[in-house]
Amino acid sequence: MIIGCTTVPDEMTQSSMVPETSVATTPEPDFVLDTSNTHNKFSRAIPPVLRVPPGAVVELFTKEATDGQLNVNSTAADLAKLDFNLIHPLTGPIHVEGAMPGDVLAVTFHEIELGNWGWNAHRPGGSGLLADDFHEPYLKTWSFSPGQTHVEFEPGISIPLQPFPGVVGVAPDTDEMLSTIPPRANGGNMDNKYIGVGTTVYLPVFVEGALLSIGDTHAVQGDGEICGTAIEAPMRIVLEVHVVKGKSILEPQYETDDYYAVTGFAETIHEAARKASRYMLDYLENEHGMAREDAYALASLAGDLKISEAVDMPHYLVSMHIPKEIFKKRQ
Amino acid sequence: MIIGCTTVPDEMTQSSMVPETSVATTPEPDFVLDTSNTHNKFSRAIPPVLRVPPGAVVELFTKEATDGQLNVNSTAADLAKLDFNLIHPLTGPIHVEGAMPGDVLAVTFHEIELGNWGWNAHRPGGSGLLADDFHEPYLKTWSFSPGQTHVEFEPGISIPLQPFPGVVGVAPDTDEMLSTIPPRANGGNMDNKYIGVGTTVYLPVFVEGALLSIGDTHAVQGDGEICGTAIEAPMRIVLEVHVVKGKSILEPQYETDDYYAVTGFAETIHEAARKASRYMLDYLENEHGMAREDAYALASLAGDLKISEAVDMPHYLVSMHIPKEIFKKRQ
Repeated sequence: MIIGCTTVPDEMTQSSMVPETSVATTPEPDFVLDTSNTHNKFSRAIPPVLRVPPGAVVELFTKEATDGQLNVNSTAADLAKLDFNLIHPLTGPIHVEGAMPGDVLAVTFHEIELGNWGWNAHRPGGSGLLADDFHEPYLKTWSFSPGQTHVEFEPGISIPLQPFPGVVGVAPDTDEMLSTIPPRANGGNMDNKYIGVGTTVYLPVFVEGALLSIGDTHAVQGDGEICGTAIEAPMRIVLEVHVVKGKSILEPQYETDDYYAVTGFAETIHEAARKASRYMLDYLENEHGMAREDAYALASLAGDLKISEAVDMPHYLVSMHIPKEIFKKRQ
Repeated sequence: MIIGCTTVPDEMTQSSMVPETSVATTPEPDFVLDTSNTHNKFSRAIPPVLRVPPGAVVELFTKEATDGQLNVNSTAADLAKLDFNLIHPLTGPIHVEGAMPGDVLAVTFHEIELGNWGWNAHRPGGSGLLADDFHEPYLKTWSFSPGQTHVEFEPGISIPLQPFPGVVGVAPDTDEMLSTIPPRANGGNMDNKYIGVGTTVYLPVFVEGALLSIGDTHAVQGDGEICGTAIEAPMRIVLEVHVVKGKSILEPQYETDDYYAVTGFAETIHEAARKASRYMLDYLENEHGMAREDAYALASLAGDLKISEAVDMPHYLVSMHIPKEIFKKRQ
């Protein structure tokens, strides 16, 4: 167990940090967690590397998704050599004191800083939505400088960076060592680009202490992540954890100042959309006291279905956002 | 054929108009088209009711989706009496001179004004994404006043109005009288909330004159339209038509100042998402000169997949948006 560890990996030293996205009032971290004890499965059998009280602010560092198998000088040929058993090294688990099965773990992202490089790839036979259209492996890498706000995809195309962790999850209630590829009720590889700075994500707790793990950090990604990868990059994250009693959710949800959102995973996008829709109706019933038939109508008028990821097989993730302004008293 | 008709239906007289959404520079209409000759199928066999040159500005009026079977005093019991053969009365067809098969019809929406009422409904056995969860018909109606910007869904819940036509389509290349329910390559019932004021929609032309029809106007709707209806309301629309030669698209696309978007329809959301993704790659190749493998990566990083409608069976519609800012020279 590492408590208050201050060792950080070379690729993530302060001098290499890009102050990418942060809120004005980032609190001072109570704990620091480096990448020296990552794991890459979801299971209650993986012992925690840090124990924190509710309300703790944790600064943590993440590895990129291949666990160091790629670097900024890698080429497309290197993709053939990847050992997929190493994919998704995760930082954690973090045991949050007082979190019990049936509770909800709330994780608020205060600050996310990119490391000094990142990569994007697709390959034949991979998980991309159009993998069957392409016959050659593809890899692009970028170096990031401190203060960088955009990434130049190619000359003339510049994408604003919007970093977030592709994987945010708690331990499932099983000793089985589950793959980190598909998202599940415990969260995990949701690849949801809205779960970044300024967002609080709510995760259902399945085991004592919740056992939060984070990784697969993305510098930027669109809804769908259609080629199967984002710009995959190591990062530094400052987050705050809270235990919510008496809030019951079946799958992860999240909110910002502007909207509340629910997610549903399933083996088809259609079923994931139905689950997300039902969770939105639950939210409108439970949090806004609406009759369910009214909630269904309101979600049709003001709820937006987004395909968060279409590539993390065998599970698609669909999210529904509803704006908070509709519940505010108008001037 | 009606050219320059100035008769407007009672429910859409100027005094009942809600100046909902408009751009500063709405041009004066060259033609006015009322609702006295609506039709409700897609077919090249339906003769045009108006003939306009490219560049024409047309003011047209639409009926609500049931063609007058519901009114502001209707109740849920009235849903059982609906004749679904009357659904989607469309204004048009408008023959645009010079539009030939293989061309693209560009339709820009300058102004959309709500009529004086609207309704929303869902029902067991209907097309809603969760129709199997509900066992009673549901109907809600609203009156709209001039200048109204929000609709009060119920006390404490107020939704900003964002009117758009659920149906925008050209004639398909068939004499068959096709249902207006599913969207197809000719557009039609796309139920895409972004195709409103400030948007230009591009429709592939299949028959001489294009034969544009518009209807099923929605006061507000979320991505997905999950209960099967929006707030369905009659409207007044000012639009401008242009014929684009040498632009080849297979299914409707659209753009605003902020983004370019493509759509794909299919019998599964998954296949619709794949089609939309491929169309985005076509766009990036054709309009931005990208290599296809780079376009795939870029769409994964900056393209957003949205479920536009999940209820117009047997066809789902998925859209992908890409922001234009990524192509702009940075200061």
